[in-house]
Amino acid sequence: MFKHTKMLQHPAKPDRPDPLFAKKMQEILGGQFGEISVAMQYLFQGWNTRGNEKYKDLLMDTATEELGHVEMIATMIARLLEDAPLDQQEKAAEDPVIGSILGGMNPHHAIVSGLGAMPESSTGVPWSGGYIVASGNLLADFRANLNAESQGRLQVARLFEMTDDKGVKDMLSFLLARDTMHQNQWLAAIKELEAQEGPVVPGTFPKALEKQEFSHQLINFSEGEVSAEQNWLNEKAPDGEAFEYVKEAKTFGEKPELKPAPPFVHNTLPGRE
Amino acid sequence: MFKHTKMLQHPAKPDRPDPLFAKKMQEILGGQFGEISVAMQYLFQGWNTRGNEKYKDLLMDTATEELGHVEMIATMIARLLEDAPLDQQEKAAEDPVIGSILGGMNPHHAIVSGLGAMPESSTGVPWSGGYIVASGNLLADFRANLNAESQGRLQVARLFEMTDDKGVKDMLSFLLARDTMHQNQWLAAIKELEAQEGPVVPGTFPKALEKQEFSHQLINFSEGEVSAEQNWLNEKAPDGEAFEYVKEAKTFGEKPELKPAPPFVHNTLPGRE
Amino acid sequence: MFKHTKMLQHPAKPDRPDPLFAKKMQEILGGQFGEISVAMQYLFQGWNTRGNEKYKDLLMDTATEELGHVEMIATMIARLLEDAPLDQQEKAAEDPVIGSILGGMNPHHAIVSGLGAMPESSTGVPWSGGYIVASGNLLADFRANLNAESQGRLQVARLFEMTDDKGVKDMLSFLLARDTMHQNQWLAAIKELEAQEGPVVPGTFPKALEKQEFSHQLINFSEGEVSAEQNWLNEKAPDGEAFEYVKEAKTFGEKPELKPAPPFVHNTLPGRE
Amino acid sequence: MFKHTKMLQHPAKPDRPDPLFAKKMQEILGGQFGEISVAMQYLFQGWNTRGNEKYKDLLMDTATEELGHVEMIATMIARLLEDAPLDQQEKAAEDPVIGSILGGMNPHHAIVSGLGAMPESSTGVPWSGGYIVASGNLLADFRANLNAESQGRLQVARLFEMTDDKGVKDMLSFLLARDTMHQNQWLAAIKELEAQEGPVVPGTFPKALEKQEFSHQLINFSEGEVSAEQNWLNEKAPDGEAFEYVKEAKTFGEKPELKPAPPFVHNTLPGRE
Amino acid sequence: MFKHTKMLQHPAKPDRPDPLFAKKMQEILGGQFGEISVAMQYLFQGWNTRGNEKYKDLLMDTATEELGHVEMIATMIARLLEDAPLDQQEKAAEDPVIGSILGGMNPHHAIVSGLGAMPESSTGVPWSGGYIVASGNLLADFRANLNAESQGRLQVARLFEMTDDKGVKDMLSFLLARDTMHQNQWLAAIKELEAQEGPVVPGTFPKALEKQEFSHQLINFSEGEVSAEQNWLNEKAPDGEAFEYVKEAKTFGEKPELKPAPPFVHNTLPGRE
Amino acid sequence: MFKHTKMLQHPAKPDRPDPLFAKKMQEILGGQFGEISVAMQYLFQGWNTRGNEKYKDLLMDTATEELGHVEMIATMIARLLEDAPLDQQEKAAEDPVIGSILGGMNPHHAIVSGLGAMPESSTGVPWSGGYIVASGNLLADFRANLNAESQGRLQVARLFEMTDDKGVKDMLSFLLARDTMHQNQWLAAIKELEAQEGPVVPGTFPKALEKQEFSHQLINFSEGEVSAEQNWLNEKAPDGEAFEYVKEAKTFGEKPELKPAPPFVHNTLPGRE
Ligand SMILES: [Ca+2]
Ligand SMILES: [Ca+2]
Ligand SMILES: [Ca+2]
Ligand SMILES: [Ca+2]
Ligand SMILES: [Ca+2]
Ligand SMILES: [Ca+2]
Repeated sequence: MFKHTKMLQHPAKPDRPDPLFAKKMQEILGGQFGEISVAMQYLFQGWNTRGNEKYKDLLMDTATEELGHVEMIATMIARLLEDAPLDQQEKAAEDPVIGSILGGMNPHHAIVSGLGAMPESSTGVPWSGGYIVASGNLLADFRANLNAESQGRLQVARLFEMTDDKGVKDMLSFLLARDTMHQNQWLAAIKELEAQEGPVVPGTFPKALEKQEFSHQLINFSEGEVSAEQNWLNEKAPDGEAFEYVKEAKTFGEKPELKPAPPFVHNTLPGRE
Repeated sequence: MFKHTKMLQHPAKPDRPDPLFAKKMQEILGGQFGEISVAMQYLFQGWNTRGNEKYKDLLMDTATEELGHVEMIATMIARLLEDAPLDQQEKAAEDPVIGSILGGMNPHHAIVSGLGAMPESSTGVPWSGGYIVASGNLLADFRANLNAESQGRLQVARLFEMTDDKGVKDMLSFLLARDTMHQNQWLAAIKELEAQEGPVVPGTFPKALEKQEFSHQLINFSEGEVSAEQNWLNEKAPDGEAFEYVKEAKTFGEKPELKPAPPFVHNTLPGRE
Repeated sequence: MFKHTKMLQHPAKPDRPDPLFAKKMQEILGGQFGEISVAMQYLFQGWNTRGNEKYKDLLMDTATEELGHVEMIATMIARLLEDAPLDQQEKAAEDPVIGSILGGMNPHHAIVSGLGAMPESSTGVPWSGGYIVASGNLLADFRANLNAESQGRLQVARLFEMTDDKGVKDMLSFLLARDTMHQNQWLAAIKELEAQEGPVVPGTFPKALEKQEFSHQLINFSEGEVSAEQNWLNEKAPDGEAFEYVKEAKTFGEKPELKPAPPFVHNTLPGRE
Repeated sequence: MFKHTKMLQHPAKPDRPDPLFAKKMQEILGGQFGEISVAMQYLFQGWNTRGNEKYKDLLMDTATEELGHVEMIATMIARLLEDAPLDQQEKAAEDPVIGSILGGMNPHHAIVSGLGAMPESSTGVPWSGGYIVASGNLLADFRANLNAESQGRLQVARLFEMTDDKGVKDMLSFLLARDTMHQNQWLAAIKELEAQEGPVVPGTFPKALEKQEFSHQLINFSEGEVSAEQNWLNEKAPDGEAFEYVKEAKTFGEKPELKPAPPFVHNTLPGRE
Repeated sequence: MFKHTKMLQHPAKPDRPDPLFAKKMQEILGGQFGEISVAMQYLFQGWNTRGNEKYKDLLMDTATEELGHVEMIATMIARLLEDAPLDQQEKAAEDPVIGSILGGMNPHHAIVSGLGAMPESSTGVPWSGGYIVASGNLLADFRANLNAESQGRLQVARLFEMTDDKGVKDMLSFLLARDTMHQNQWLAAIKELEAQEGPVVPGTFPKALEKQEFSHQLINFSEGEVSAEQNWLNEKAPDGEAFEYVKEAKTFGEKPELKPAPPFVHNTLPGRE
Repeated sequence: MFKHTKMLQHPAKPDRPDPLFAKKMQEILGGQFGEISVAMQYLFQGWNTRGNEKYKDLLMDTATEELGHVEMIATMIARLLEDAPLDQQEKAAEDPVIGSILGGMNPHHAIVSGLGAMPESSTGVPWSGGYIVASGNLLADFRANLNAESQGRLQVARLFEMTDDKGVKDMLSFLLARDTMHQNQWLAAIKELEAQEGPVVPGTFPKALEKQEFSHQLINFSEGEVSAEQNWLNEKAPDGEAFEYVKEAKTFGEKPELKPAPPFVHNTLPGRE
């Protein structure tokens, strides 16, 4: 169960409204790697965890924090939208600055949400449950989390460079710090799990059942052998085996010819051409 | 530019048709972490790489191989669909085995593709470009790739346990091996990049601009302090700093009260309640 | 079955082209609460109605009118797109007004539809069947309809404020009037149904089977008791019972610990951390 | 900001696993009117509220409770999936009961989430931000909320009828009670707002600007005049005006003929046919 | 504007309920090439037609008929769902026929629509505006229409083979006939337009501006020259020119190396590897 | 299996960066008829072909070429994004040209992909597997292909008119030429298949089983008889039969009244109104 605290985790006050930046900031709210994504991802991972309570705790705590980040960004967007010159159509035709605001802002902010945040990305695409990952395998999922916090922090850093508003930068610098922590924490937890399960997910699948002759081959699928110059090829692979370089990809399969479909499927009859 | 080789990379022949397994196998073709996802993800990462040609090569080679994996699985699905008893409606009412095949198979395989593979997941949801990641930051993206190969291998391992068909298992054991290699290769490349850029993405963002007092705090957002028992809390964080445990989450922000909307937006007037 | 009348229900002629407004107007054509949504919603509700022919009639009549609204708005958008300066790229670099039109208009209007309307929202997201509601329970559905006409009229009112074009305003003022009627009609029909089925949907579910001790509690999930100040708390609830205020949310459930997954699922083994 | 309580709001323990019911229960988790939808809808409405703090409180409290409902249902689904006979393929061919479980369950539960809940509907479609409503107009939005709780309670009631599991029914009977409360609360709040703003949303739009001659017409779009038999036609409309019945729909607009597109758009040239 | 006729264009009465077939039939209602798609496609093409009134008429008439087909199929689905044994959970555990109906039917039909049709495909994916085509170029669009009627009739033919219900077959045989007509009519109209505009769309684009040396080459992108055996290679191309066979694909472009990103984008620095 | 060639099929170098055109060009990369669509469509058609190897070859060769077109356009977009003035926010407020670039460009290009191409359309909507067609019936599918190449070439032609950049035009003129070839080739292959299977898809469905009295009727669904003026009505239909004009659409079906739902579905009870 959850409880709500009326104060924000961190201030979310821009120095001045900026409807164009409000549109861009939607990315870290409702984009593929926005705060809704990490909140939902950690929630589902936490709820689905079976028998590793300390990790479940970690997931639920982090998820709960992320819900507060969603709140901060939604609030920031609502404030960036204040005083949008929606009623100044006539001026817009003459004043190119107003014109480019009205032409460039997310129309949903004007028409749909009444100057509020939307659960969607910077291009106005609704957030999708298809973005998140919760597989029941914690090593796999912590890698997903590390990825999410890496992409997320990268996007926040880019937004930071795209504004001069000190209030906005203040909140972003807090989010950058928390993303630093979250990258650190998933890295640390990944190290722990790799020590127990090995680096290849899932560690429980018997090696003997995979075709091990292909498990360490870097196969070249293009002309030239530039790809052989990867430095790590000469080191041991993370799972302790030796890498092998295959100069030219070979086929081991057959030319796939399928059986004609039965007549009641009404595919093209064989022998047409 | 690409060229096509008529042979498959590896055989894709089931011992016998199985329309129900064809439905399940769609997940590793057109699901969130299916072969279409990794092929497209590596292609876009490769095409967007700016100035690191060896990594671009690695991406393009791996992407090209994944296109061949899409081909193998599509072929396998087409063969699993042969001899589907679509014309045996009457028998189905009496024979529960036929009934459960006709009731459980993906209707698209019968009605839309004429016994062929579909670009969709095991629940029949079309593949989405929203699944993939290509950010221009290679460390971030290689983490996405490691995640994709971890989720992907996990799904293949689960499918392996869900069939007794030797031909299917033979192909899956090849895919398991290639996923082992791909996890190894992204791990090795990540190690290289982390050595150069540090573990926190993006490594180029100046530390001084983030609120460093929050960069290493594990904050407890629930009652009790079980979350403090993470072993790694007592070790150095991956970026070399010390972790800190915060026993109870505090708010630093204000209670967010927004300015009423201007009348022309037709939001609820202030003072209603 | 339907028939088509070549005249529009109401004129749809702007005074002058305006590609930027064409983009915005897409919201009430193909957005969540656009005319496609209400047309499809009423059609499916009508077709699915079982045994209440007068309501079925009402639904089909209103649905049919809405198809004519889709037509009017599509026509208006096509006219707003006439004379878009698509061939004036060179001028755009100098003339910021042309520049902001070319930068701000929906690219689909130029590239995909050839200056015609699209079945999508103001951000260019395709209309989705996931927007509509047709549950077979008319009271539930009329509430959905009242909501749709409320959101829809709100959006039309906002668009009305965002243009000075008299032709556009003329059509919008007609749509505003019809939305007034449709709100009135669903309100009237809701009142009728509530009189027969009670205010809680579905009225046919036996009260004894729900946990009635929780059926009228306003539970406080945050610090402070401001939420207790709702005026209606002191009145009877719409279903005739008394409301109750719960000062602090309590948990009645257990700490959810799940059984470890069986080995063939390849989740993380228990005891990892 | 949010905090998490480790206990569930209400128990979520089925008497026995049931993977088929787990699939169905996804609807009230990640479907159009599942708990994710109401949680997100109330959150966004709360965050976007401008200047009506008591309603903002009500929204945030209810939203926070709904997050706990998402948690309960996710936990229930995870438990319904325990002991799914995923490794009993051979038996399934002989035992039609096992066969129909393996054929009928959501493949994501086996392959993707490792026996955990998914953020998707009962047909395996990812939850979409396009489901929710937060317009800034509270009367409009409370109608959306009343609709959501009506559709939601209807779906819970149907699920209640579709299982004999006492543990599942126990949790559903709690959800039914809370949905009763939430319908009551939105009805009460709607009554308050209607008293202040009138029944037609948005109440702030000047009547004089809509075409009032069309604001109370029930227009017949089909043969016969059965639609005239609505009882409420003879009563005053909810906004106090008189309804009017129009026996046959008339067109007031023109036959829409569009100007040919300029040549650089490469539409079909005029005069073709 | 539209009017509604209460009779169906053709009877839509199954001999007996069949919830599994109701699920399959959703494909031709709300799938990619279902009746919603053709209705919406023809409507948007009609509304966007500029200056070719006879074709606009043809489109609007056909669109209007398709709306009636949507109605027929929705009605048929609603009837196929009558008497679904939703309350016979206990029997289902023993009776595999009931079990496979309850496991195989679309859960939306039970939980969401209350035994009614849904605006979605046979896998339960909502209909999408992204399926339709309306480009403003009639030759291009009539080809889209011919494709839609070809795919649609193929799907109806497959469904026809998958049922023994005479009432269902009766309706499908009507739809097959209408699809025959619609293929004929688009073929005839295409022939007319090709006679005026030539076979290559858009016919108005000056030949001199395309790289004509590549306009008739069949390029071989695989080993072997089987692809040269196409009979039509030896005939004139439809636009009157000669085809040319290129034995092996050549590259004319450069190895694409991109400029490093500026530092404020925080991509990977050049020189990493 | 596939191999990659490091050179592009054709140069993809703009004369100068243009972030606004990069946004527009996304349409032919990741839009409904972009290069991803044709590549995936031909791949799935090729892989699903059963027993017509020459056509399978043709499909695989064309698909493989299209993968190279995806590569060219992705490269072009990445170059159009170089030097985007993302760090010139302050100047943008004064310089309307910079302002309209920053307001009009796709925010994903700045925030998500780091100046790279995205797998999405010009409005920022992710590419969807729901766009493509692969039915197993080659005549149906070649019609889909002809449509795709017609829509695609039309979009390329429109883009060609919307830029003055010689480098961009150079690449587009190559794509126009290849689309000319692909239209020619599908037209030629369609002619071959029609000669064998007849013009109505699927040609294998017995005529006697469709209601032939409706197979050649052009039915008028609107007032007036303008639709009778189609010239082709007086000629033989493509399948050799005579067209027939029906002056006014008639209904042959019944008024659809559905059986009330059973009580456990909790639909509205009959007799409500
Ligand atoms: Ca965060
Ligand atoms: Ca692979
Ligand atoms: Ca309307
Ligand atoms: Ca709830
Ligand atoms: Ca039809
Ligand atoms: Ca192409």
